[in-house]
Amino acid sequence: MTKINENFLKLQAGYLFPEVGRRVKTFKNTNPKAKIISLGIGDVTEPLPSAITKAMHKAVDQMGRRETFRGYGPEQGYDFLIEAIIENDYRQRGVDLDSGEVFISDGTKCDISNFQEIFGTDNIVAIPDPVYPVYVDSNVMAGRTGSADKNGQYAGIVYLPCTAENDFVPELPREPVDIIYLCFPNNPTGAIASKEQLSNWVDFARQNNAIILFDAAYEVFISDAEIPHSIYEIDGAKEVAVEFRSFSKSAGFTGIRCAFTVVPSQLKAYTSNGTTVEVKARWHRRHSTKFNGASFISQAAAAAVYTQEGRKQTGKIIDIYMTNAALIRRSLTELGYEVYGGVNAPYIWLKTPAGFSSWDFFDRLLQKAHIVGTPGSGFGPSGEGYFRLSAFGRPEDIKEAMQRFSCL
Amino acid sequence: MTKINENFLKLQAGYLFPEVGRRVKTFKNTNPKAKIISLGIGDVTEPLPSAITKAMHKAVDQMGRRETFRGYGPEQGYDFLIEAIIENDYRQRGVDLDSGEVFISDGTKCDISNFQEIFGTDNIVAIPDPVYPVYVDSNVMAGRTGSADKNGQYAGIVYLPCTAENDFVPELPREPVDIIYLCFPNNPTGAIASKEQLSNWVDFARQNNAIILFDAAYEVFISDAEIPHSIYEIDGAKEVAVEFRSFSKSAGFTGIRCAFTVVPSQLKAYTSNGTTVEVKARWHRRHSTKFNGASFISQAAAAAVYTQEGRKQTGKIIDIYMTNAALIRRSLTELGYEVYGGVNAPYIWLKTPAGFSSWDFFDRLLQKAHIVGTPGSGFGPSGEGYFRLSAFGRPEDIKEAMQRFSCL
Repeated sequence: MTKINENFLKLQAGYLFPEVGRRVKTFKNTNPKAKIISLGIGDVTEPLPSAITKAMHKAVDQMGRRETFRGYGPEQGYDFLIEAIIENDYRQRGVDLDSGEVFISDGTKCDISNFQEIFGTDNIVAIPDPVYPVYVDSNVMAGRTGSADKNGQYAGIVYLPCTAENDFVPELPREPVDIIYLCFPNNPTGAIASKEQLSNWVDFARQNNAIILFDAAYEVFISDAEIPHSIYEIDGAKEVAVEFRSFSKSAGFTGIRCAFTVVPSQLKAYTSNGTTVEVKARWHRRHSTKFNGASFISQAAAAAVYTQEGRKQTGKIIDIYMTNAALIRRSLTELGYEVYGGVNAPYIWLKTPAGFSSWDFFDRLLQKAHIVGTPGSGFGPSGEGYFRLSAFGRPEDIKEAMQRFSCL
Repeated sequence: MTKINENFLKLQAGYLFPEVGRRVKTFKNTNPKAKIISLGIGDVTEPLPSAITKAMHKAVDQMGRRETFRGYGPEQGYDFLIEAIIENDYRQRGVDLDSGEVFISDGTKCDISNFQEIFGTDNIVAIPDPVYPVYVDSNVMAGRTGSADKNGQYAGIVYLPCTAENDFVPELPREPVDIIYLCFPNNPTGAIASKEQLSNWVDFARQNNAIILFDAAYEVFISDAEIPHSIYEIDGAKEVAVEFRSFSKSAGFTGIRCAFTVVPSQLKAYTSNGTTVEVKARWHRRHSTKFNGASFISQAAAAAVYTQEGRKQTGKIIDIYMTNAALIRRSLTELGYEVYGGVNAPYIWLKTPAGFSSWDFFDRLLQKAHIVGTPGSGFGPSGEGYFRLSAFGRPEDIKEAMQRFSCL
């Protein structure tokens, strides 16, 4: 008799985005002519620039010729991409990495949800609130939690509230924890962590022999020169942190699929009898056993991001999104909203008007302005009373959305 | 203190292919001028045909234009590809599937190694011997086994010997098991299962409320009209089987990454108190939480495989490989080898000459003929005394390899 993994039955029914979809669908049915503007899901809208499509065309041609055809690539990724990453994303910021420490994949969602697998199920996991739901769900599936309470929070997880009071950067836990998820620039709040704040986390992890899983998928949106792009800019971080990066938002690859994960050689975990074991070797084993490399076309596309032309062109697209973000911030501030994020991140996190829950505001915005955003409470209880707007959108749509806001 | 998943420490050190690589490297160092022919790893060698590269160029262009750009696709895959699969791979063989039952992914290796995750760790797993190592390793990582013995077999797994006596089709286990891995056409033995043999397995699974994970990655190589391409050609299989298929070998996608998994709605598993739960819903949850869709370019390429031109062109490539297989079979049979497979599968499984272990024969073939194959014992103890040759190769290389065999 095949037994199901009963941890899956603890999962809340994928509450947030399906519920958003359901409400939008109902609205559309009764308002078929309304022109809805979506600032909800964080998906890019600008097409791939020519430096990238040119590299992809070339790669496709290579695959069509006998002399240049490539079958299975190295599971860890092609050297041409790994070297470009090490040079551009790290060496130029003073971080040295070895090519064996970078793992190319088809997405940060996969990497960050799979990474927990190489750790025991008896680890205590600390997760910010509000948060990208994948961190939590992957740990629920693995059996590191009990059931969810009425707020949707699972027993056994140490939640780290992120509020206006702490500038949406969580405070250190008062109890020891083993695995810590951090995401800066943050989704959903758009908050960033200063060097000092990150240093506090690195110190905490070192003191507790804990590991930080650092999601840096939005680092390219940092505009402030003082803010670290990589956790490895913090002394000692290589001994306690894994870093996840993606081309999804930085180069418009949400439909192309390419990302990477850095696992430093120094990073260690422990057996139950206290022996240290290398984390990188276990991730390598997991990666090569359960993954077969990212598409060669996607890796060729990713390498093109680091060319002079690629940097210029993707930089212009980032500017478009961050101009959107600035417009949203300015418009909403002028309208009297309490607004966070949107300066070093493509998300604006706004306080809902007095008396409005996150979902109340969602409904009002949809009904009155035909705008779809994301209720903050969907990211966790500390998100209640907040609302996320994404700066990914066509500038003309963002402009119109802001006009509609002014008539709310 | 971060605890490692100690199940990873039970894994044998990825013995087979690294050891092959080590011996080849040593040989090359001492014989730098030898022209080595690799019939080892099962990787395609023919370039992508024009119907596929054309579709990919078009998809790249679409991604470069604002009006046709696509960001995140549906996690389960694009309808255009799912519909082509259902129509061509299934409806035309008398199998009806619903679009919700097909999950597009970036590879069968990922799917088949991740699928076990939705089942409890207390299931008894039955795995053929010899076998593709990923089935075993993914279950070791998940904690469904004890340690390995001196043969590399893990405590707790029910191994199903596949030998010349049973035509390399395993016999039904005498004890109840919960999850069964089957692969036909088989890697590594090249064996196929008749309709009757598959029916026996489906009946066994139904009687035991077990689930068959059926790896059909090589179905396109079946030439015999009587052999089922899909396990769903067997009555009742939808209630007990998941099927894995890939474009890797059928269309040369090992570097492109596209595959799919079929999970019928009727498939059920059980909770510990005997309640039935739908398997598909759990895989959907896993797939949408820990995966973000296959590349749009890869999915567009896969859809082109089903066009008239695509079928014709990929068919020609299959013919090349199967002509290779026939040449290997004929040549080795004439030379007096006992040869299996190679008729409905791209692998030839040969009995090593008397007195030669699998690794002895590997060394002899490398030293005397400069040919790399795969020692059968690397796939499991029942593979000892056998040797795998892959028919994926350039025809001129296969011809030369056979000449060299004749001088052994």
